[in-house]
Amino acid sequence: MRPDLSGIDPLHLNLATRFCVGDLLTRTTQLFAHRTAIVDREEEISYGRLNAAAEAVGRGLLDAGVRRQEPVAFLLGNSWRFAATFFGCAKAGLVALPVNLMLPPDDIAWILSDSGTRTVVADPAFVPLLEAVLPSLPAITTVVLTGDDAPASIAGRQVLRWDDVAADPTPLEVMVSDRDTLHCLYTSGTTARPKGVLTSHLSVYVAVLSNALQVEHRRGDEFSVLPIVLPLFHTTALDTLLLPTLLTGGTVILPGGFEPDAFLELVERRSATHIVLLPMMYGALLTSPAIRTRDLSSVRLCIYAMAPMPQERIEQVAAAFPNAKVLLGSGQTECVPATVFQWPSHQDTKAASWGPSTVTVDTRIMDPSGRLLPSGQPGEIVYRGPHVMSGYWNNPAANTAAFAHGWFHSGDVGHLDSEGVVWFTDRVKDMVKTGGENVSSVEVERVLLSSPEIVEAAVIGVPDDRWGEAVTAVVVAADPDVDTAALTERLLAHCRQHLAGFQVPKRIDIMTGLPKTATGKIQKATLRQQYRA
Amino acid sequence: MRPDLSGIDPLHLNLATRFCVGDLLTRTTQLFAHRTAIVDREEEISYGRLNAAAEAVGRGLLDAGVRRQEPVAFLLGNSWRFAATFFGCAKAGLVALPVNLMLPPDDIAWILSDSGTRTVVADPAFVPLLEAVLPSLPAITTVVLTGDDAPASIAGRQVLRWDDVAADPTPLEVMVSDRDTLHCLYTSGTTARPKGVLTSHLSVYVAVLSNALQVEHRRGDEFSVLPIVLPLFHTTALDTLLLPTLLTGGTVILPGGFEPDAFLELVERRSATHIVLLPMMYGALLTSPAIRTRDLSSVRLCIYAMAPMPQERIEQVAAAFPNAKVLLGSGQTECVPATVFQWPSHQDTKAASWGPSTVTVDTRIMDPSGRLLPSGQPGEIVYRGPHVMSGYWNNPAANTAAFAHGWFHSGDVGHLDSEGVVWFTDRVKDMVKTGGENVSSVEVERVLLSSPEIVEAAVIGVPDDRWGEAVTAVVVAADPDVDTAALTERLLAHCRQHLAGFQVPKRIDIMTGLPKTATGKIQKATLRQQYRA
Repeated sequence: MRPDLSGIDPLHLNLATRFCVGDLLTRTTQLFAHRTAIVDREEEISYGRLNAAAEAVGRGLLDAGVRRQEPVAFLLGNSWRFAATFFGCAKAGLVALPVNLMLPPDDIAWILSDSGTRTVVADPAFVPLLEAVLPSLPAITTVVLTGDDAPASIAGRQVLRWDDVAADPTPLEVMVSDRDTLHCLYTSGTTARPKGVLTSHLSVYVAVLSNALQVEHRRGDEFSVLPIVLPLFHTTALDTLLLPTLLTGGTVILPGGFEPDAFLELVERRSATHIVLLPMMYGALLTSPAIRTRDLSSVRLCIYAMAPMPQERIEQVAAAFPNAKVLLGSGQTECVPATVFQWPSHQDTKAASWGPSTVTVDTRIMDPSGRLLPSGQPGEIVYRGPHVMSGYWNNPAANTAAFAHGWFHSGDVGHLDSEGVVWFTDRVKDMVKTGGENVSSVEVERVLLSSPEIVEAAVIGVPDDRWGEAVTAVVVAADPDVDTAALTERLLAHCRQHLAGFQVPKRIDIMTGLPKTATGKIQKATLRQQYRA
Repeated sequence: MRPDLSGIDPLHLNLATRFCVGDLLTRTTQLFAHRTAIVDREEEISYGRLNAAAEAVGRGLLDAGVRRQEPVAFLLGNSWRFAATFFGCAKAGLVALPVNLMLPPDDIAWILSDSGTRTVVADPAFVPLLEAVLPSLPAITTVVLTGDDAPASIAGRQVLRWDDVAADPTPLEVMVSDRDTLHCLYTSGTTARPKGVLTSHLSVYVAVLSNALQVEHRRGDEFSVLPIVLPLFHTTALDTLLLPTLLTGGTVILPGGFEPDAFLELVERRSATHIVLLPMMYGALLTSPAIRTRDLSSVRLCIYAMAPMPQERIEQVAAAFPNAKVLLGSGQTECVPATVFQWPSHQDTKAASWGPSTVTVDTRIMDPSGRLLPSGQPGEIVYRGPHVMSGYWNNPAANTAAFAHGWFHSGDVGHLDSEGVVWFTDRVKDMVKTGGENVSSVEVERVLLSSPEIVEAAVIGVPDDRWGEAVTAVVVAADPDVDTAALTERLLAHCRQHLAGFQVPKRIDIMTGLPKTATGKIQKATLRQQYRA
């Protein structure tokens, strides 16, 4: 049964029924025009102003010649103009492509080239970078610069001022389909060149609704207040912090950086309801004297992301924020986070787990032949549902592999328990296959890091005639002047005490530092190459 | 930017990324298999059992020859088998067509005919109805009967037992697209034949997420418990009570009927968290002695629907349920409710309003030329967004009118205030145009009903040479033996005191009853016809 809609203008029908992330802001503006959407440093941007700027920048980009579903690259730090440009692209049916600003210039140039970008929106701080990379990027025709002073051109390309582009706030009504691409985010690429992950309006809007439900952004007449210190160019801050807060009329605070004392002062002064930080940031908060003097009672939820947090630190955070639950949220760029989220009770019973799926995601475990495994059995974590990306850009082979057997393959190994809670073991690529056994590098690292003599650890498999792969640990000592031979012996003894024999490293090397990605992830692929060479 | 997906089986891609209401139950079952999804009378149905039955009935209907996107008519009372059949249709890509069981046989036959139904799922109580209507419905080939005893055939058609159809619980994996039709619900039709409203998976899933957020179904580790006494064949009970509760792992209770004492006992015994009733049902609860003896502290939200409730009754409900907020939710079949929903604070400040839009709906006011009006100005209430229906079945003219100017036309008149709160005035068709003025029938009825001598009132416009339409009131007196001439005089005096001159009825007729639809709405169209004749 389908309706006969032959009498209706297709654009009209699209506008009346569509699922477009740009409309999210239109709607909250209709309800909350005068409320503060974003506090950028100390500048307060109302919903009305943010929405008008978004309509205007979307229209301005179309007027500048950007075409439907074409990428617009962002070289933008966290600011209200990032949000306005993002919503402008969403409303105009353009693809927002926020670039990871921590990447080396070489990777940034590669992303701009691979994506076919013609238009870049940048902060003035990135003019030197653009001058360096534009000569090798002939496709780029236009740079839109925030800030008051803009040069007439950069490397021969047209330069427009953001304020001029965003001058005409007439409401923008163009065709945007549910499955149109909303954003393209390049993964940080620990093993190869970054891959462009294409995500639709539908995926993100569903994730936004699901996340708002999960973290209880709606509480009667109360509105959330959420400071964002993680970078907006990542899916975590963009899709699960900025958007769900703005969906529900809350206020996002962009302090422009993370400094523990200032952050705690901000939480008190703005009555923050939610905070979302990396475990190391919580560690920094706990060492600040302000943690004992600031009134932190407004915080309802302390979320940590990206990595587990030791039980002791979780308890310290719970003690410091007297009214807050402390929860881990997990996800990945290819499956708009958070796809897996602890419940409050899991902190007492299953703190080392990832928690269960959110209600809009199917999460299961699959063996290499494509068979779904029952609870308790380890295998690859696979997902289904609208959170899952549309696919990788310009990479059909990666798409075919990612969607094998009708599920999205996360590249993570783990198992589900009888309550559907996900227990992560390791990345598929980081598992060590040794003497017929599978060893989780993460598990061995956890044991090593439980020694106070170690501050960082990476465990990899190194090709070995006898074992296939030899479990190999590379660690950084807390004391740079330690006797390395004696420390190695102590660590091996520690491992023998806490691990099965086949899990104990065959070799432990002490180094002064580990190779890391721009976002701070240890590059095990680089380590593996170094050991192979 | 679109990904190259040429290497992927389209069914696999569909399964991995789709937005299908059938998956809602798959996912909650994965998390909550052993929790109770539905209590049907006193029988507890777990998520695992409900999902297995749904997979099985979906498969069984396909095996019985129902084709993709074909309707399956339900003649089913509220029961767990209604829910299983609904999810089975969703999972199998069939169109669920729950028939309003309060309609006269003639209308039911018309719906079955207009929809092209070939398959009916029915409770045994409806066998006599089927025997009466099937002779005029040659398209119907198959009747699936719940209950243990089924005749071999009804009016010559094949009869299958529901339990036999739902025998094979192998997971069902078929192509279902986001915009496929999930259900067809016929509007009750106060003016013409019922119209079939087609609604997509996407619309309903968005409404379910939005509603779960709005009524706070997620509260940490707490689960909702919601008794449903409204009929599941309406969008209200189906899409905004059953589905959001099951999305979030809660328990739906189907008591099988509404009796005030039994309902209050149930609320206490099952620790209900949400109750949703019509205003007259709250009235009945308040007169029950049990309202003072039962422990009703578990209830967090008392929602009333369909009609406003006098301030005094709101306060009585708030007093009876000590921990509950009391809220009005509004919507219509064409725009999956609840599209407009009061916030808790509105009960104190704007109790007579509908409240603001939910965050997934655009609500605006439009004049007859298609111009959107600023706040304060009255006009037709129009909606945009994914809640809006796909269209009417078999009725292109109605679709063209409904989507004029790129907005869905609700047929309701009202205005928005400066905070985006919707104030409903009247149905467009029920406004009386008299002497160049517009009179809201609802407003005149409210004044009439404020007299304790009146129990029902309907105000209509009757064609009149002088006035164009004459404001005409038809009322039912509380005392059937009252002196009607004297009462008419008293009511006119009462109206003159509370209304502007042009709003005062030109004529008041006292009757013993008013014509009503199957769902209890007063049929003003019938009254208008009677007065015209």
